[in-house]
Order: sequence, then structure tokens, then C-alpha cells
Amino acid sequence: MGSLPVSFDPLNIKTFATESKEVIDFIASYYKNVENYPVRSQVEPGFLLNMHPKTAPPQPTSLEIILQDIQADIIPGITHWQSPNFFAYYPATVSNAGFHGEMLCTALNIVGFNWICSPAATELEMIVMNWLGQMLDLPQSFLFTGKGGGVMGGSTSEALICVLAAARDRALEQFGEDSITKLVVYASDQTHFVVHKAAKLIGIPPKNFRVIGTSLSTCFALAPNVVQTTIEQDLESGLVPFFLCATVGATPSGSIDPVEKLGLLSKNYGLWLHIEAAYAGSAFICPEFRQHLEGIEYADSLSMNLHKWFLTNMDCSCLWVKNPTVLLDSLSTTAEILRNEASESKKVVDFVDWQVSTSKRFRALKLWFVLRRYGVHNLMKHIRSDIELAKHFEALVKSDNSFEVVVPVKFSLVCFRLKPKKEEREESLKVLNWKLMEAVNSSGRAYMTHAVLGDIFVIRCAIGTSLTEERHVSELWKLIQEKTQVILKVRPELESD
Amino acid sequence: MGSLPVSFDPLNIKTFATESKEVIDFIASYYKNVENYPVRSQVEPGFLLNMHPKTAPPQPTSLEIILQDIQADIIPGITHWQSPNFFAYYPATVSNAGFHGEMLCTALNIVGFNWICSPAATELEMIVMNWLGQMLDLPQSFLFTGKGGGVMGGSTSEALICVLAAARDRALEQFGEDSITKLVVYASDQTHFVVHKAAKLIGIPPKNFRVIGTSLSTCFALAPNVVQTTIEQDLESGLVPFFLCATVGATPSGSIDPVEKLGLLSKNYGLWLHIEAAYAGSAFICPEFRQHLEGIEYADSLSMNLHKWFLTNMDCSCLWVKNPTVLLDSLSTTAEILRNEASESKKVVDFVDWQVSTSKRFRALKLWFVLRRYGVHNLMKHIRSDIELAKHFEALVKSDNSFEVVVPVKFSLVCFRLKPKKEEREESLKVLNWKLMEAVNSSGRAYMTHAVLGDIFVIRCAIGTSLTEERHVSELWKLIQEKTQVILKVRPELESD
Repeated sequence: MGSLPVSFDPLNIKTFATESKEVIDFIASYYKNVENYPVRSQVEPGFLLNMHPKTAPPQPTSLEIILQDIQADIIPGITHWQSPNFFAYYPATVSNAGFHGEMLCTALNIVGFNWICSPAATELEMIVMNWLGQMLDLPQSFLFTGKGGGVMGGSTSEALICVLAAARDRALEQFGEDSITKLVVYASDQTHFVVHKAAKLIGIPPKNFRVIGTSLSTCFALAPNVVQTTIEQDLESGLVPFFLCATVGATPSGSIDPVEKLGLLSKNYGLWLHIEAAYAGSAFICPEFRQHLEGIEYADSLSMNLHKWFLTNMDCSCLWVKNPTVLLDSLSTTAEILRNEASESKKVVDFVDWQVSTSKRFRALKLWFVLRRYGVHNLMKHIRSDIELAKHFEALVKSDNSFEVVVPVKFSLVCFRLKPKKEEREESLKVLNWKLMEAVNSSGRAYMTHAVLGDIFVIRCAIGTSLTEERHVSELWKLIQEKTQVILKVRPELESD
Repeated sequence: MGSLPVSFDPLNIKTFATESKEVIDFIASYYKNVENYPVRSQVEPGFLLNMHPKTAPPQPTSLEIILQDIQADIIPGITHWQSPNFFAYYPATVSNAGFHGEMLCTALNIVGFNWICSPAATELEMIVMNWLGQMLDLPQSFLFTGKGGGVMGGSTSEALICVLAAARDRALEQFGEDSITKLVVYASDQTHFVVHKAAKLIGIPPKNFRVIGTSLSTCFALAPNVVQTTIEQDLESGLVPFFLCATVGATPSGSIDPVEKLGLLSKNYGLWLHIEAAYAGSAFICPEFRQHLEGIEYADSLSMNLHKWFLTNMDCSCLWVKNPTVLLDSLSTTAEILRNEASESKKVVDFVDWQVSTSKRFRALKLWFVLRRYGVHNLMKHIRSDIELAKHFEALVKSDNSFEVVVPVKFSLVCFRLKPKKEEREESLKVLNWKLMEAVNSSGRAYMTHAVLGDIFVIRCAIGTSLTEERHVSELWKLIQEKTQVILKVRPELESD
């Protein structure tokens, strides 16, 4: 077990099962203990760099030693996204089925850029993208059974690069190649920075990226009339509006842009409308949340990250488009090395032409595993139970007069803060809430991150890691209250209000 | 075992180990049998689409049934990249250690965009990128121990988008934002199509992508004088040369561009020189092949895919840059949601600013696992044994008068063909060789793909899947000879030469 082979045999079929089961036991033990580790790693910069040998080992090390080293040296440097007390950023959910699907994907290790490279990989991807599209009640126009289709990738960034490039090339076709410096992208100040980054990557000058302000009055949703005014101003300046990103469930606040109104606007002005639903998209498999996608028939594309809330482990990102031809016009190649009879028959889909990379993992197998192993009803139950936990936390916050919930909770993200006292300025309130958050985080007992909405600093409690139960949420609240006592003691003037 | 939980508990710690071990046994059995499956899948387009239910299952399915379905329905649709008889495209090598590293990465499921998100993930990535950089004898200027550094990602495409965007933004800074339509990229006709695709994605007009012809006389390497002439012509036309890609071990032919000469040229003309070594890069850990990187000190960046030849399973791509500041100028964000004390201390690296995506898997753990588990000496042995197998195959081809090896073999790719008879035109020879290749592939006993070098059609025998042994290479040759007999019988005029 874990002993070294005499001849070098990297895929050693004889030892594969035994060794792999040792690793499985290690992982099982990690999950059993993860609750006991400090959630946010408490190491100092350089902890591992300073400890590690400067050169790669010339000779092999046994599996046992490596696993021991992971336990001793690596685990303390991990911020435990799988801890039930992880409430930072967003939940990166895992599951037995997600893990099993990923194991099979890694073991078969096919590279599915073309249909012929593994017909099952391409067709299963079409199947699960249709299945999930139906679960989300997407219009037929987004599915392979209509005239659209979907593709799986590693990140929203990749999806955005694809749709932005497709929209850009469509605009350049119309307005001429030189117009690239005139193209304008619209998004809100709640929009994830990857949209800005992707727009810059595809050559849109950063000054042509319109970050449209939002406010508490609309729960930080984009106001269509403001978007319209901005578009009109740009048109008057001789610029070319071409792309609007609506976010449904934004990272900072969970805000929901009004899809239908923005869709009509996009239609009027000839903009490509993309719906970015990286986090909240998974919720729309429940009919009671599907309303937030109403009007999607006016959109051109939709992306979401299943590796956030859909139990697929990293990574698993989905993109649906209504008009694959425009995408393929931008991304297709005619490279001789790819030529094969199946592709030339035009009877198959070759996903290399739908995505940035040629490398393509068999992620479809993982999603298929999750969908089949759990079934739609359980997946809905999973979404609803996280939202119930968020409501539970929201109620706890509301029950305490020192606090306020800043944005009404729609999904499983709660944005709250120690609330302002009379005439207290946002800046000092921000310092106070940062201190509270840091006090919680440095305790190692929970981890939350922050956002600034307008000028309001909020602590974000993002609920839903796979191991989080009601007791963890209740414990989190107790911890917050405990730390609040300490914080407020050093700011006694705030207690007297 | 595999029974369904009563309450829905997606990460079920109680069943995790038992269920996962069932999947391990399934995989072990797959590897034992993979040699017996037809290498290239023999299914027809639509085989799975037509067989599968049209909607996702509402209720759960047991693990046993899912594994049975994979065996019955999915496996026949797989083109077995792990078969020892797979000689197509390039080897996508796997190993016990690669699999174990990937399992741990998937199970810990951290998202390492910032140092604080898991300090161990960031620091281990810096460590392994330094280790591997040293193994490749990269100049200090490419390592974190110098002023450079490296980052891991999922594909060469992502790496290219990053360096192309960095080079573009540096040029736009110098020549003005409007000059984007004047920027020109240079590469050879052997360069992988992803360079062209990435250039188009970042907004370089396709007409500004120079595909420089190569020929058998230079073994399909870029001729620096031809590059220089092309650059001079572009300068005369008022264009702005800004990026040159040198390929070391090109996909079609294995050709090797002269790094040093192209480096001096790039320096003279102020071009960003990128070295693309997706496939062959791994070989440069062996001193006898390192010569092909000579002159790399003049390059700005280097990328390679360890998931090809370095036993890491999919996916694992590496990028080193000499001047991270230029990269970071293009890719950095100041998003509030990312703000944390460690980043503000400037004592840490935040890899989100080094790559396209925010999502970041713990791939460093996998590479660390492979490097430690096997050690440098074994990894060299692995490269050398594949090259020995390629030489064995080359010798077999050369021993038969009907065939020729078109390009001298440098790594583990053999480009060969049935050789021309007197006055035979390339077109008919191409048809003949395509027929031979198809006869081999449709037998299910081996799988090879093709390339067209200049106007020469070649069959590519890419050696090196993890299970390939000498007997498989010998059997392949027997199979080729057997099919040649059949092919030549229907073209008797060719036998009489």
C-alpha cells in the first residue's frame, strides 16, 4: 500500500484501487474534522514558501508521507470553504455525486473538443444542458430542442468572453472594424467585476464600460430609465452601445436586475442582453423563484455557475445562447488537425467552436451524475432549505435592535450591519462593522466577507455550504453578538443612543 | 452502499467513503478493460441523444444503477484517450498521483482567487511553479525567486488571452487606443489554431494575423528572415507589429521554432515573444532536450500543458511571465468584494490578477502530488521511455519501403505516410493515406489522426498514453501493414513501381 513501484509505471493498475481508497479515507476524515478547523486560515504570508524545499525532490515520496504532509503543512493553510461555518463570498457546494462525477471525469480523462473525440461527452452535454434548461423553464429558443443550445465550461469569465466577442463581432460587422473603440458595454455597480474584466480582455476600451449606479430605493437593481438615458447620451456622442449585462442575484447584494424591461430596452437599441446568474441561477429550478427570469425571451444569453449552489464541486459553469450561429461565427476554426468525417457530415455539435479553450473536460458526466443521483425534487429541496436558513438568520438579525438587514433577503445571502446611531457618519460605521467582521473572522469560528452598497458597508452572510445546518447559523449569530459586545465596549458612545 | 438517504444530505459523510470506493472499483475495472474497447468510439451521431429521456429525472437513482448505465450507455460512446492503442491528437496522460491530487483538489474544493481564500493554495502554486521552472532550467527572471512568476490554469487558450491582452495593452499605451486595428500578430502555419483564436478574441482583426509559411527544408520551423521581412512590410504599411508566437513542438509536425533568433528579432522590433510549448514543454526537464529552449531569456512568456505529457490528468496548464507587472496591469481589479488585509499588506500574491477567471481550483496540489510522488528522476524516465517508443515506431516505418517518415522525429510524435510513387500527385496520395488511416481507425484497434504539412498529408502517430508499452506500438505497426495490404490491393497501379 503506497509502496513504490520498481519500474516506473505512473498509471499503476495493480495499486490504483488500494492507493485511491487510502486517499478516500483521508478525504472522509477531512470532512469529519472540517468543522473543528479555523475557518479562515490563520497563517502568515510566507508560511509555506519559507517552510518548503526550494527544489523539486529528485526521488519519489510515499503516498503515506504525502498525506501526512498535507495534514501537517497544507491543512493549516487552507481556508475551509467546506466548513459548515464558512459564510464568506458564496458557497462552493459539494456533494457525494458531484465528487463521484468529477472522479469519473478525471479517470476517463477524455478531451472532448470535437464530437468524435468522445461522442458520449458531446451528446451528454447537450442532454444535460437541455434538462437543466427545462428545469429553469428557459424558452425553447435557448435549448438544442429549439434553435439555441448550451455549453459547459470552467467559469463565468470564459462564458462572458465568448458572448462579448460574439456581440462585438456582430457589431463590427455592422459598423466596421474601426468601431471597436466606440463600442459601449452597460452594467450596474452591482455587476461582478468579471464583466468589466472580460470586456477589457476582448478589446473594449475601459472608458467605454458604463458602470451604472444603483441605490437602496431599487434594492440595488438597475433602473431601466437610467440605462436608457445613458445609452441615449452615448448615441449622441457617436458611440455604439452593443452589450448590456443584467445580473440576477448580484454578488455584493443579491440584487436582481429587471430582466423583462432591460430586455425590451435591449431589443429597441439592438444590444446583446446577457443574463449573469452565476450564484442565484440555481434557485430558478424552484417555480417560486422563476419570476426573476421573466422576460428572458428577450435576452441573447444566460450564464450560471453550478459550482456555486448546485452541488457539482468545482468547476462547472453553464452558458446558454439563443443564436449559436453568432457565437460560432466568432469562435469557429477550420484547422486541418480537427477535420474528421463526423464534423463534415454536419450531423454533430463540436463544442470547440462554442468555447474559448480546446481542452474540454467531461463535466457533463458530473452534472448528469448530480441530476440523476438526486433528482429534481431533492435539488429543489436543497435550494429551499438554504433559503430557509437565510430567513432564519435574517430573523435573528432583525430581532436585535443594534442591527439592521440592509437589503431584503431574496436568496440565501443576508447583507446586514450594526446600524447607524443618530448622526453617525457612514465612514465610522464602516470602521465599526469591519472591526466586528474581523473579530468574527479572526476567531476562526466563522468566516464572512463584506460589500459596499452605494456607500453602505455591509457584512455579507452567504449561507449554504453543503454541511451548514441550522445550528451553525444559530451559533454564528451568538458569535456575532458576543463579538459585538466587545466591539461596542470600546465604542461606548454608541451604546447610549 | 449506494442506498438513498431519507433526508436530503448531499455531502453525506456517513456514506461518502463507502460510495466513493465503489466508484474507485468501477474506475479500476475500466482501466483493466480499456485495452479491449474500440479506441475510437464506433457510435453514430445521435446515439445517446435518441436513447436518453427528454427531461431530468424527478426522483433519485441509486449509485449502482448510474454506474451500470455508464457501463452500458456511456462507455460505448467514449473515444478512449486512456487506451494504450490511442495514438491520435496528443497523449492526455494520467497517473495514480495525478488522480489522487485531483481527488483532493475536488474534495477540499477551495476557490483560491486570493491568498486569503486559501494561503496554502497560493503559496503551493508559487512553490511548484518555481520547482518546475527550475527543472526546465528557466532563467531566474521567469521565477518568483527572480522578478517573474508563474500561474496555473485550465488551458493554453486562457494563458494566451492573458499574454496577448498584456502585450496589446502595452502597445496601446504606447501607440494610442485607436491603434488596436493596426496591431499585428506573427506565428507560423504550424502554430496551434488557439493562438489565432485568442488573438481574435482580444480584438486583433483577423486580417492582422500573419500565418507565416514553413517548409520541409526547415522541418517546418519558422525562418527568422521570413518573419523579419513580414514585419518590415507591415511597418512600411503603417501597421504595428506587437506579438510573435514561437512554437516548440507544434501539434501538426512537432516542429521547433528557433527561439534564440526569434528572441533577438523580437527584441529588435519591440515585440512580445511568447513560447508555446503545450505538448513538448514537459520534455525539457531532460537536459538532452533543453537546447530547444535556448534563447528563452529573450522571451516574455512561456506556456505548456502538463495535462498532455506530464501525468497530471486534465486539466493543468502553466504560464510563466518575465514581467508580471505588465500582466497585472491588464488583469487586475480593485473590486471591493475582494478587499482584505493580506492583499493590502502587499506581502502576498493574489492569483485572480494573473488569470482570466476568478474561479480557481487547487491545481497546485495535483502538480505537487505528481512531483513528490514520482520525483524528478522518474519523470525524466517517463519522458525518455515515450521518446524511445517513438524511435521504435520510426524504425519500423523506415524499415518498410512503402512508407516514409516525413519529419525527423524529435519528441514522441511520428509523422509518416505511404510514400509517393513516380509522378503520383499529392492529392491522390492524400486520398490513399486518408483511406489507410480510416481503415486503422475504423477497426477499433488503434486511433491516429492526421495533419497537412505544407501540401504533404501525413498520418500522425502520437505516442505516450500512460498505458502504452512497446507491444502496443509493435501491434500498431502490424495493423498498419495489414490495412496497407488491403488498401494497396484496390490501387494495384501503385504496387508496380
